[in-house]
Amino acid sequence: MAKRKSIRSDIGWSTATTITVKGFDLCKDILGKLSLGDMAFLELTDRLPNAQESPVFNAIAVTLVEHGITPSSIAARMTYAGAPEAMQAAVGAGLAGLGSVFVGSMETAARMLQEAIPDPKAAVNIDGMAQKIVEQWLSAKKIIPGIGHPYHKPVDPRAPRLFEIAAQNGFNGPYIQLMQAIAREAEKRSGKQLPVNATGAIGAISSELALEWRFVRGIGVFARAIGLVGHLREEAKNPIAWEAKMRIDEEATAHQRGK
Amino acid sequence: MAKRKSIRSDIGWSTATTITVKGFDLCKDILGKLSLGDMAFLELTDRLPNAQESPVFNAIAVTLVEHGITPSSIAARMTYAGAPEAMQAAVGAGLAGLGSVFVGSMETAARMLQEAIPDPKAAVNIDGMAQKIVEQWLSAKKIIPGIGHPYHKPVDPRAPRLFEIAAQNGFNGPYIQLMQAIAREAEKRSGKQLPVNATGAIGAISSELALEWRFVRGIGVFARAIGLVGHLREEAKNPIAWEAKMRIDEEATAHQRGK
Amino acid sequence: MAKRKSIRSDIGWSTATTITVKGFDLCKDILGKLSLGDMAFLELTDRLPNAQESPVFNAIAVTLVEHGITPSSIAARMTYAGAPEAMQAAVGAGLAGLGSVFVGSMETAARMLQEAIPDPKAAVNIDGMAQKIVEQWLSAKKIIPGIGHPYHKPVDPRAPRLFEIAAQNGFNGPYIQLMQAIAREAEKRSGKQLPVNATGAIGAISSELALEWRFVRGIGVFARAIGLVGHLREEAKNPIAWEAKMRIDEEATAHQRGK
Amino acid sequence: MAKRKSIRSDIGWSTATTITVKGFDLCKDILGKLSLGDMAFLELTDRLPNAQESPVFNAIAVTLVEHGITPSSIAARMTYAGAPEAMQAAVGAGLAGLGSVFVGSMETAARMLQEAIPDPKAAVNIDGMAQKIVEQWLSAKKIIPGIGHPYHKPVDPRAPRLFEIAAQNGFNGPYIQLMQAIAREAEKRSGKQLPVNATGAIGAISSELALEWRFVRGIGVFARAIGLVGHLREEAKNPIAWEAKMRIDEEATAHQRGK
Repeated sequence: MAKRKSIRSDIGWSTATTITVKGFDLCKDILGKLSLGDMAFLELTDRLPNAQESPVFNAIAVTLVEHGITPSSIAARMTYAGAPEAMQAAVGAGLAGLGSVFVGSMETAARMLQEAIPDPKAAVNIDGMAQKIVEQWLSAKKIIPGIGHPYHKPVDPRAPRLFEIAAQNGFNGPYIQLMQAIAREAEKRSGKQLPVNATGAIGAISSELALEWRFVRGIGVFARAIGLVGHLREEAKNPIAWEAKMRIDEEATAHQRGK
Repeated sequence: MAKRKSIRSDIGWSTATTITVKGFDLCKDILGKLSLGDMAFLELTDRLPNAQESPVFNAIAVTLVEHGITPSSIAARMTYAGAPEAMQAAVGAGLAGLGSVFVGSMETAARMLQEAIPDPKAAVNIDGMAQKIVEQWLSAKKIIPGIGHPYHKPVDPRAPRLFEIAAQNGFNGPYIQLMQAIAREAEKRSGKQLPVNATGAIGAISSELALEWRFVRGIGVFARAIGLVGHLREEAKNPIAWEAKMRIDEEATAHQRGK
Repeated sequence: MAKRKSIRSDIGWSTATTITVKGFDLCKDILGKLSLGDMAFLELTDRLPNAQESPVFNAIAVTLVEHGITPSSIAARMTYAGAPEAMQAAVGAGLAGLGSVFVGSMETAARMLQEAIPDPKAAVNIDGMAQKIVEQWLSAKKIIPGIGHPYHKPVDPRAPRLFEIAAQNGFNGPYIQLMQAIAREAEKRSGKQLPVNATGAIGAISSELALEWRFVRGIGVFARAIGLVGHLREEAKNPIAWEAKMRIDEEATAHQRGK
Repeated sequence: MAKRKSIRSDIGWSTATTITVKGFDLCKDILGKLSLGDMAFLELTDRLPNAQESPVFNAIAVTLVEHGITPSSIAARMTYAGAPEAMQAAVGAGLAGLGSVFVGSMETAARMLQEAIPDPKAAVNIDGMAQKIVEQWLSAKKIIPGIGHPYHKPVDPRAPRLFEIAAQNGFNGPYIQLMQAIAREAEKRSGKQLPVNATGAIGAISSELALEWRFVRGIGVFARAIGLVGHLREEAKNPIAWEAKMRIDEEATAHQRGK
């Protein structure tokens, strides 16, 4: 095969007696020492989290594991109902819908913050920046990511709890401050209560952890994979997919059958 | 919609001010207290792991996160090359191949052990049971799951390390003993070195943790989702999918073009 | 890269000015000459269908395109609700559930017939074979594939229509005869009406067309991909996924909220 | 379950003795009368194609079935290598990559044309419109969809053949004319050869057929599902996934192993 460019990966490799992941010996340096969440941090950053980063990162990942009955968990359950021999494909189907509508908003929040503050060590006028950002989003008639919630009112309880965990570990930098300032500014301009929601908190805290906004969605993707396995386990014990299908079908086509 | 049977889920639900997951208040009882691995244990068992279960479960999950360049990670990278706007679908595509050939073997090992020992508290003749199981698999001309490795020789280094972590936390019960006895018996009968591999260790330790064999594959599925996000991150920075595609295409069709 | 074995594909290749698929020049021999169904036949057999095979193959593929509101179409719609920018992933999610429960049965029927009659030109005692097969499946306590229908009673109307189209094109060979004899024998033994259903007709007719049973499921997979695009188009115009999700969630967790 | 809005679908429904798809009786009006391609047209438009539309629509769908070794077909083969029991998930994985990079460009071309000419019956100045569009795309520094080809030079042979089939069936309206005018204008401005490619031809002809640009990608999705089944069939007979994986892995990690 003609080579145009080299093919290179630095994630993992093996010899007959060793396995290396991101430069660490799996058996000596990782197993028994790293928790699953810390391993995920390593995958997203190429380094181990320190004692402050670990609980904060785990908290945002844990927040994203389980959202109950969602379009994603219904898709996984429906898929499992047809192919119980391929649980992995049911999880895959459930993940496929974690796009722009739900999980995408935390990527958008992280992007908004990281593009506004490329260098978190530089001095910034947080309130002035928030005014400018809110103005930009409103004049573009786009919904500002990370604030307000259609259901959790007046406050999405996850956001203050996540900010609390972050602060307890020393994270209260410019991204968190900017996210909160954006919420205040949006509330002032709209006259509505629009506190930072879980999405905004995760976008801001991810940015404090120096996670690239392009892969913040990835936290939601792998966290939800955990939750989807839980849903398939429940579906296997107490199935709901077929009954839900029957009811949807019946109502959706009743007008035709009634003819 | 006519109701034939009720639709019920006990995984998660929300009110305007609270979020509950498996009976725990997300903000008060889970966030900041549970690591991602412990949250996964909760999804798989409906209870929190204790201080011994937590490191053991995290170790087996961490083992499954990253296997480097695999058919699964190539599938994810190829998908990402065509649809970088839908990272979640690339992870889903990568998971879809975690079936009978690779990840399925740890499910098969767990099933073999749990069907042999339905009650881990009952007295069992481990060596006699191992002889019978090896005899059954060999006479059915099927490959015994969980022993030997095509590449890691003489020993898959993950297996002894996982057993060590299990033992340090008090797990050295009948499932682990049976798995090791099966390996010894298979070695005796074949004259080859067939030590327990990572798959067998995980199948046995999962059984010690009382995880149902039907969902042991699920650990591999969500763990690999974490690794696949890592692969997509590397693919975004240093792409290899297109170059690999070009070479495969060129070699695969050279005989036709040469005509 | 060290080569252990060669990599070869005979499906398609290109030069700067030509595109070849399965040995045919795409622009000269295929476009404008082959319908989509005939192209699918080429993919499944490496040859073009003749004038009798084409309508029969198209009929079985068309039968599988649209089954209305199914677990598969709900999974696709739920996925689309979350990621409308990735329609392809929503189709993929919908396909993932076409496993053993629904589409698998036509693969099982085709396999049963092709294993019974490896050579369709050899003389066979159809009735004796049917008795033996029914006896085998019943004594193994397995459901005989391809007969009876939970909803279409007394007869799945697709089966006689497909057999009619097959007969009009000269297909009434041993696989069709065996499938019908199996249904008669099963009816005799059970005392119930168990006529051949669409699945059985497709399994039998696919076998008459010399399609390998291992890829009969594939007809269902690509046919349903067509139908799923139709469902996503309707979902975009008149969405039902979110309303269905809300109702399922509400009922499923009412017992918790009521506490 | 509380109803907020009604759930309605007009695609398909059944009674015990009949099956209806888009208002047609499946057994009487569709089976034996509609080819697979015409059935796909029905799914995309809610009506049957006429004698001119049918060959043109089939030609564009057939064009999209098979592109040989692509990232998509490699993803499907890699998935099948791990989960041969779940062929449907391998097709789903292959489809997941049909996003913005490859198949998306024909959606972009169709959108460009349909937004420029909302009403194909209205009089338009094709050349003036083409100048304006090319100016817009170039000044936005975006690649004009549907023209030029990195490999098929000087001309993508599919485009003239598809235009020929369209013209033979009476389709040579404003969308085709505009697409060709855009190519001429882009060539004039750039001094390079940038003829309409297959993507542009399909975008233009789909628009002539009054297919909504939002679902033009869908044609590529279901057509490729057919081709992917063909790739899995070849992979089952003559596997290449594992050998390709071994070579990629070996080269990608050689620099680490060499340490």
